[in-house]
Amino acid sequence: MADEQPPVIEQTVGDEKGPSKNEIKKRAKEAEKAKKAAEKAAKQAELEAQKAAADVDYASELYGKAPLNQSQSRPRQTRVQIASLNPNLDGETVLLRARVQTSRAQGNKMVFLNLRQRTDSVQALLTVTPEKVSKQMVKWTASLQDESIVLVEGVVKKSPEIIKSASVGDVELHVSKIYLISGLESRLPFTVEDANRPETDVNAGEDVQYKRVLLDTRLNNRVIDLRTQTNQAVFKLQNAIGHFFRDFLDSQGFMEIHSPKLQGAATESGASVFKVNYFKGSAFLAQSPQLAKQMAIAADFERVYEIGPVFRAEDSNTHRHMTEFIGLDLEMTIEEHYHEVMELLDSLFIHMFRGLREKYSNEIEVVRKQFPADEFKWREGPEGTLKLTFKEAVDLLVEDGVAREDLDDIDTENEKRLGRLVKAKYDTDYFIIDKFPMALRPFYTMPDPEDPTLSNSYDFFMRGEEILSGAQRIHDSALLIEKMKSKGIEPESMSSYVDAFKMGCSPHGGGGIGLERVLMLFLKLNNIRRASLFPRDPKRLEP
Amino acid sequence: MADEQPPVIEQTVGDEKGPSKNEIKKRAKEAEKAKKAAEKAAKQAELEAQKAAADVDYASELYGKAPLNQSQSRPRQTRVQIASLNPNLDGETVLLRARVQTSRAQGNKMVFLNLRQRTDSVQALLTVTPEKVSKQMVKWTASLQDESIVLVEGVVKKSPEIIKSASVGDVELHVSKIYLISGLESRLPFTVEDANRPETDVNAGEDVQYKRVLLDTRLNNRVIDLRTQTNQAVFKLQNAIGHFFRDFLDSQGFMEIHSPKLQGAATESGASVFKVNYFKGSAFLAQSPQLAKQMAIAADFERVYEIGPVFRAEDSNTHRHMTEFIGLDLEMTIEEHYHEVMELLDSLFIHMFRGLREKYSNEIEVVRKQFPADEFKWREGPEGTLKLTFKEAVDLLVEDGVAREDLDDIDTENEKRLGRLVKAKYDTDYFIIDKFPMALRPFYTMPDPEDPTLSNSYDFFMRGEEILSGAQRIHDSALLIEKMKSKGIEPESMSSYVDAFKMGCSPHGGGGIGLERVLMLFLKLNNIRRASLFPRDPKRLEP
Repeated sequence: MADEQPPVIEQTVGDEKGPSKNEIKKRAKEAEKAKKAAEKAAKQAELEAQKAAADVDYASELYGKAPLNQSQSRPRQTRVQIASLNPNLDGETVLLRARVQTSRAQGNKMVFLNLRQRTDSVQALLTVTPEKVSKQMVKWTASLQDESIVLVEGVVKKSPEIIKSASVGDVELHVSKIYLISGLESRLPFTVEDANRPETDVNAGEDVQYKRVLLDTRLNNRVIDLRTQTNQAVFKLQNAIGHFFRDFLDSQGFMEIHSPKLQGAATESGASVFKVNYFKGSAFLAQSPQLAKQMAIAADFERVYEIGPVFRAEDSNTHRHMTEFIGLDLEMTIEEHYHEVMELLDSLFIHMFRGLREKYSNEIEVVRKQFPADEFKWREGPEGTLKLTFKEAVDLLVEDGVAREDLDDIDTENEKRLGRLVKAKYDTDYFIIDKFPMALRPFYTMPDPEDPTLSNSYDFFMRGEEILSGAQRIHDSALLIEKMKSKGIEPESMSSYVDAFKMGCSPHGGGGIGLERVLMLFLKLNNIRRASLFPRDPKRLEP
Repeated sequence: MADEQPPVIEQTVGDEKGPSKNEIKKRAKEAEKAKKAAEKAAKQAELEAQKAAADVDYASELYGKAPLNQSQSRPRQTRVQIASLNPNLDGETVLLRARVQTSRAQGNKMVFLNLRQRTDSVQALLTVTPEKVSKQMVKWTASLQDESIVLVEGVVKKSPEIIKSASVGDVELHVSKIYLISGLESRLPFTVEDANRPETDVNAGEDVQYKRVLLDTRLNNRVIDLRTQTNQAVFKLQNAIGHFFRDFLDSQGFMEIHSPKLQGAATESGASVFKVNYFKGSAFLAQSPQLAKQMAIAADFERVYEIGPVFRAEDSNTHRHMTEFIGLDLEMTIEEHYHEVMELLDSLFIHMFRGLREKYSNEIEVVRKQFPADEFKWREGPEGTLKLTFKEAVDLLVEDGVAREDLDDIDTENEKRLGRLVKAKYDTDYFIIDKFPMALRPFYTMPDPEDPTLSNSYDFFMRGEEILSGAQRIHDSALLIEKMKSKGIEPESMSSYVDAFKMGCSPHGGGGIGLERVLMLFLKLNNIRRASLFPRDPKRLEP
């Protein structure tokens, strides 16, 4: 010990006379003192040695940073999912890979972990146990950063009481081994817990005790933001909508197609098309698969759908516009009447809504915790979906006090107002408006047979926002050319499209659905960017 | 009748003397003659009137050009599919919409039609029948241009012998009504029959009696070309491959994602990226969903796939390159070893091959008529898919006489040679090459744990052409940055990608499949453009 000096025996050199009695007594006393000190030091050293022996880490093989996985070996050990853990496994040893969502040390002998896999989490704990869990192992585990990925072996134990902080709350995991698979090399911009807080909490004003994570911060660090249980659920639901779309259409004899996004000409409407440098010339990004899917009909494909990106070069910075989104598009031949298409689309939506409610209620529930919303309502049974004509919709708004002269078109604000009126009157969040004025629709829309100012076209609405636009199309090239000219489009500029109808084409119609809009409105996420994995808008191209 | 003059009674004027007996006799005779002539004329006139009456078209309501379908009415009549017709329906009246593939008049009393719906066809005929089918109706039907779309009502009749020119050959349709739904306003550039001829016939040299339709002509008039039975089958098979891909991955716990095609930076390799004018700046089209799907893994999505367009700005004008094609991409976490991914991908392909063989043999047969090919072969059972290391593949080629010094990489020519060698030796059209040299792979590829010149990467081959490329990826940001720098890529230029791995990321791997390549090689279509609905290459942006 550096701070315990060895006793110094005092000597008087050059003093030749013998020691006095007192002196002898004094010296004996000092010698006795020195002996005791030496004994004390020896005892201390022994204790130190014992302590050092105790510090040899008997658990050193049971934890630590794993070497970088380069597929060095393949022991084929079974790894489990947190969701599969339950009290019936009490006493069984399991192995799993998970994130450390949070860790909490209790003294230096115990640490609690919240382990997370996607939407599932479980509590794990380590307690110092001779020959098993060492103090060092506990200390190392407690030092793991949140969001580290670990490989954990542990024994499943029925938990004495439900653990509310975990989605699997009836068991806990008594950790026997823990290795770091991937750590963090940077500070988290925000915690996943904060990012998962109910929007109501963070909007609570001055009482807010949590850090609010702003949308832009989330999107700048989307990889972290996507790890929240809410977002894991949101994108499971996005996946589900696509599947319901496909399953329904497959059952109705549709075929999936893939049409090119690179176009030779700026189609439909030149203003909002992205231009691409194409070798020595230019190309344009398709605003929709409209032309291609109609050409597929002219090529006898009969019933087609496509799921793919559509691009809009509109400088709109709103809650519901993106420059790239996923279009769920379909087109089909008509035997007699365009209501065949409209009714099929209606059945498609009912199929999606039902599927979501029946098979994804857990995910909807998870999202609702962060984004509280009334349950999405639609009408079923004999009365069926509410269908209004454009004129009837206008009348409803006029009745409610909107000036008729402002209703040549129904703008976003009046759409929402209409949604509220319809909800109040018919108790539905989902309805159809049919028979739009021709002036509001694109050139390829089929006019009404009796009133040429109207068209055979419809929009579908969810919570007062448009989510689908569709119509019967003009399949006659002469009429098509006439309409193009009347809208100031040169037929020559779209000659392969026009030509497709010169070789015989069946009457047909279809529609295009915005995937992210359906998702946003079903869940009431309030901003379309939340419904897109990596959203793109006029100001965002990263990540 | 213009050529039958009315009889003129001869009169001698200015002869005052009375008629002689002879004269009287003569006159009486002439009167008699005139009377008979008049009677004959009257009878003739009556016949003419009768005949004129017969020319009044008793069938005029039963045929003709239908008014443009603007959804005027909805009688809700059942329409049938040609494929559903069979001898059990003998005597029943059916209604259907179909193309007139060809028509052939027999005299002026009968006309045969070949009616087509996609891959199905049936013979129809009209015969003049009093009160039912008129001569005019037959004449009008015979005048219909090939490829016109008609609505036909007719009686199904068991045909006395199998009609070889129709896919449904055991019945014919006796037409009672026929209306033109959509006619042609332009000459066909080629007939659908010519476009559907076996490639062997049109390649037969000087004996060729059919008009050969060149690929460029087909692609310039793709809407007509796509109507061939071959192409209808090709795109049903394209649709099927996508469905098998999805079904298999869904069953393995994968989730579908949609990643943005608009990128803020030219990623992966700047040279072959299309640049987009993005408001006041620039964007770039994604060459693959590589970065996004890896970021989805860093965001805990665990197992993801995407089906979407990928863009390559390579000025390659070969049989197997396009500037836009459909990528079937997947990425998944690894528990122990990247062979987990490789084996899953292998199972995916076996699932697709089996599905095609078991559920789409008719379509494969239809395509084979135009594009003769050996049946696609793969190995199943205990021996499983042939897996070679890159080194073993090189050895096979060296054994066959290729100089080893030319085999740092295996070029297209040697790939095909390898395909032939493997086919001869192992009787399979499908195999895997594993452990590619690191130098041949992109920066994000995980190096082999023992030999840093090798990598944990693989390619899959069909008929000697690469259809999938994949690997374990680097999930450690420090190693990733090191590899980027060694390949001359500035990590700062891809910061949101690099950052994703700084916040903890599970070991993972994946692969990307070219949909059109799989389709082309399975069917041996010889040119990738035939496997794309509206192909895009450096010289083609239309239709």
